[in-house]
Amino acid sequence: MNSLNVIKIGGKVIDDEQKLDTFLKNFVSIEGPKILVHGGGSIASKMGERLGITPKMIEGRRITNTETLELITMVYGGLVNKKIVSRLQSLDVNATGLSGADLNIISAKKREPKPIDFGWVGEVSNVNTEWLTRFLKQGVIPVLAPLTHDSKGSMLNTNADTIASLVATALTTEFETKLTFCFEQEGVMNKGKLITEMNLLLYRHLKDTGIVTNGMIPKIDLGFSALKSGVQKVSVRSFEAVSQSISGTNLIS
Amino acid sequence: MNSLNVIKIGGKVIDDEQKLDTFLKNFVSIEGPKILVHGGGSIASKMGERLGITPKMIEGRRITNTETLELITMVYGGLVNKKIVSRLQSLDVNATGLSGADLNIISAKKREPKPIDFGWVGEVSNVNTEWLTRFLKQGVIPVLAPLTHDSKGSMLNTNADTIASLVATALTTEFETKLTFCFEQEGVMNKGKLITEMNLLLYRHLKDTGIVTNGMIPKIDLGFSALKSGVQKVSVRSFEAVSQSISGTNLIS
Repeated sequence: MNSLNVIKIGGKVIDDEQKLDTFLKNFVSIEGPKILVHGGGSIASKMGERLGITPKMIEGRRITNTETLELITMVYGGLVNKKIVSRLQSLDVNATGLSGADLNIISAKKREPKPIDFGWVGEVSNVNTEWLTRFLKQGVIPVLAPLTHDSKGSMLNTNADTIASLVATALTTEFETKLTFCFEQEGVMNKGKLITEMNLLLYRHLKDTGIVTNGMIPKIDLGFSALKSGVQKVSVRSFEAVSQSISGTNLIS
Repeated sequence: MNSLNVIKIGGKVIDDEQKLDTFLKNFVSIEGPKILVHGGGSIASKMGERLGITPKMIEGRRITNTETLELITMVYGGLVNKKIVSRLQSLDVNATGLSGADLNIISAKKREPKPIDFGWVGEVSNVNTEWLTRFLKQGVIPVLAPLTHDSKGSMLNTNADTIASLVATALTTEFETKLTFCFEQEGVMNKGKLITEMNLLLYRHLKDTGIVTNGMIPKIDLGFSALKSGVQKVSVRSFEAVSQSISGTNLIS
């Protein structure tokens, strides 16, 4: 089986021209088939401010009302996605941008409105690997926006970490998949020191002692869940270390 | 050779939920391979107003400065494109949204800045038919946004009518192509009467007598040029008549 890298990159790196350039150059240097999943929340927030869209939050989580759905469809599916795809083309690699609606790659169900109605948020129901596999086998890099669709004509907002984890898992039937969450830190840190390996026991300890906190918890949970579902390697590392020349935090079972 | 329909639809139809529904239902009823090319200028203008982006015009033509390029990349590549793709998926047809950067389908050169600098506007240099053909042969509808790329990392603004005409022409190597420009009128009208057939001689006469005016001229010019380059049928017709049940204006050589 060929190996496949599924790499997630967040909006803060994409929003910084120099960081994005560094990341993309490292990214294209990774050999073999690869998929890039991007976020863009920070860029959507800025654009939302300019449009006078006030983020509605419940319990620290954003509500995707109709105007927010339009905003993120524009920003994730258009602005961010096409920026990345055109940059990849300029680096002489073929790539294609995809939302979940394109080729019906990721269908989802609108999250139940109870106990909290989060609006147009999608829980992934299916990842369709047919076209993804076809692209990968032809040397094309799929660039996935964090958008799914409900098969009833609406786009849905879906977390980019979740998409990366589920796509990596779905493609284990075709590839030995590696999942990498890239961000601005070296990995999971404790008192300024990088944790290079983390199993579930250590993870629980670090959560209990407040070392691993809010922002990181869903990411690591998704990572362990992918590992359990057949993904071969999961790591959390710096956007500068995507080609794995510098260490990050590897999750181990 | 199989026949292929390349259909262009403008922003004013897309921006009206009822018209869009009517159009898409008629569109999917057309048998065989088809490509949809969409505009979105009126939607981009509204969004631009909300963002405080003042359209800059020279000689009645819009200048695509950097913030306008970002605006149209969001609106055409994200908002409009994903709306159409998700609606098509809900009608049980597989479709994929594409800008010129995706799969390097349409590369372009930034228009020469002299005599007038129109900014980030692309003159198409190549239509890559490989993936378009692959999609069509697998029953997938490509939905093309009026965006190209310069192979140097930038998106470019390119007129949707031009894209439709050049894509129809490029695909004559693989298909018998028909090009249809859909809009809100029945076709080319003279004193309230539909002109059902128009050749170059009649076209020149209608231009000279002021019947065919500004907005329509580039469309008809592109149509005749496609006809000359091997496209089998070119017509201008109402969005309600895309499946050709109602007459429009056919261009003939």
